[in-house]
Amino acid sequence: MPRRGEFSLIETYFVPLATRQVGALGLKDDAALLSPPANCDLVFTKDAMVAGIHFLPTDPPDLVARKLLRVNLSDLAAMGADPIGYLLACAWPQTIEEDWIASFAEGLNQDQIEFHIDLLGGDTVSTSGPMTLSLTAIGSCPKGKAIRRRGAKPGDVLYVSGTIGDSGLGLCVATEGARGSAFDEQMLARYQVPEPRLNLGRSLIGIASSLIDVSDGLAADAEHLAMTSEVFISVDLERVPLSDGVIEAMAKGTYSYIDAVTAGDDYELLFTAAQVHSNDIANLADQLGIPIQAIGDVLDLDPGVRLLHNAAEIDIPSKGYAHF
Amino acid sequence: MPRRGEFSLIETYFVPLATRQVGALGLKDDAALLSPPANCDLVFTKDAMVAGIHFLPTDPPDLVARKLLRVNLSDLAAMGADPIGYLLACAWPQTIEEDWIASFAEGLNQDQIEFHIDLLGGDTVSTSGPMTLSLTAIGSCPKGKAIRRRGAKPGDVLYVSGTIGDSGLGLCVATEGARGSAFDEQMLARYQVPEPRLNLGRSLIGIASSLIDVSDGLAADAEHLAMTSEVFISVDLERVPLSDGVIEAMAKGTYSYIDAVTAGDDYELLFTAAQVHSNDIANLADQLGIPIQAIGDVLDLDPGVRLLHNAAEIDIPSKGYAHF
Repeated sequence: MPRRGEFSLIETYFVPLATRQVGALGLKDDAALLSPPANCDLVFTKDAMVAGIHFLPTDPPDLVARKLLRVNLSDLAAMGADPIGYLLACAWPQTIEEDWIASFAEGLNQDQIEFHIDLLGGDTVSTSGPMTLSLTAIGSCPKGKAIRRRGAKPGDVLYVSGTIGDSGLGLCVATEGARGSAFDEQMLARYQVPEPRLNLGRSLIGIASSLIDVSDGLAADAEHLAMTSEVFISVDLERVPLSDGVIEAMAKGTYSYIDAVTAGDDYELLFTAAQVHSNDIANLADQLGIPIQAIGDVLDLDPGVRLLHNAAEIDIPSKGYAHF
Repeated sequence: MPRRGEFSLIETYFVPLATRQVGALGLKDDAALLSPPANCDLVFTKDAMVAGIHFLPTDPPDLVARKLLRVNLSDLAAMGADPIGYLLACAWPQTIEEDWIASFAEGLNQDQIEFHIDLLGGDTVSTSGPMTLSLTAIGSCPKGKAIRRRGAKPGDVLYVSGTIGDSGLGLCVATEGARGSAFDEQMLARYQVPEPRLNLGRSLIGIASSLIDVSDGLAADAEHLAMTSEVFISVDLERVPLSDGVIEAMAKGTYSYIDAVTAGDDYELLFTAAQVHSNDIANLADQLGIPIQAIGDVLDLDPGVRLLHNAAEIDIPSKGYAHF
């Protein structure tokens, strides 16, 4: 199908995504307007994805869109914020098919409904290189209450939500093909459509002393918490929660617990809380139906991270994914 | 010089750009925090630039940074907003030199000081293709007072600030080399470092009935105003203000008034106002030291644009730059 011009594509695929919030102005203005909610701070995050690096050119376009949106929503979750809307910049190769754009927009639409957010504005340009996407998500949280990476204190307990390593295994399925496991689809879905823990993030306000989402890998993100909070964090790797899919792959010897804690892209929440909150956290896990597991401790030592496996220290030369 | 990792580059070049606003959290968190000013709406815009399309790979990196920032600030000016800060996503080729990044960051620093804004957050990734940059600018304006593209009414006068076509001529200098004119440097500067008309934009609150910045070309942007406001706009091309550089090039026959009104990238403000405001606008031009010229009229006809030159209608098949 011959490609249409920028304005026509925007009208067809993106204006319908910007209809609910008055502030998007139907994408007809130079900028978007937002009336900030009362007694709130606004929270902003911006993540970029490049084809061939952050997603595969063969990934379904609707899932690429949903992952782009969800990794940004996960950053909002990691501050305890509620999402409001987002801006989107797409650099598309000149050869892109309109069907690709239609499916991409449908993925956005699906998640806009799921997360009650709208497209506020953005830009589309063309590129001679790989597709490059960037998204700015805007959220709000009660004034002065955002949870930070800093704030962990000696004596706090380290927790993580969900299971760790599924997405890394899903990436293996995506790049190397099915592994003949009953869990292949489930692991692939964890990689392609991560679940931002928004409910958990906002519920941790007043409970968590520090918080981060696991995007670079549990080991690297524990180090980010430790260095920003200026504390020492000890992680018991054998307590890190694993899915049946990861456990099966480990039993086969095709995946290791080191893979699981360095692969990244889990988008689970890693946080610290004072021991006095242990019942609150157990109750929260029940209410939200999200497993939350204590996996380590904050110690009064020089800033750093120690990874223990059955009490033996494990050395991981590079603790996670370096973007660049 | 060997390239360092992402976190080290961010620490060296970007953390110093994020020190004044508490909300940037030293770029150490997942997202940035902002306490919205009281009684204000927030304004967001996001523009992307790709090497080889929106800037030249040989352009000085500090000027690339300043242009990226300024085109977004111009979008804020076009709503009458004051800038607060910005988020930045950079997809850098693996081969980029650290010197390039250092100069790019210095350009941002220079304009942060000029426009009293700070880096709030963002992302850096690598790409196998051309450098791709995207910036989200955040501004504020008094609640309910943002100026829109819609709002022009029959009987209003069409105005434009500054001079039109300089940037198009500057692009010729950049791509084809110096033209042997005393104005070459000046035209090139207009292309490389446009001036966002922030003071004028905010002063037009309560005066302008509709407003846009001239980025796609005066003819195309007049059409955007007309179609969004659902009015007919008649432009007298011979009244469009031209610089001495453009007048010289036209006299030599190497540039035309059609080139001037279709080239784009002027980042002047194009707006409409009721005739009753003509004295206010003359006073504003004096106070701010910015030429403002009446160049047309809003008529009660079906939505559209007419370009007249000495009363003869001019047909411009494509009224401006299509991004894509």
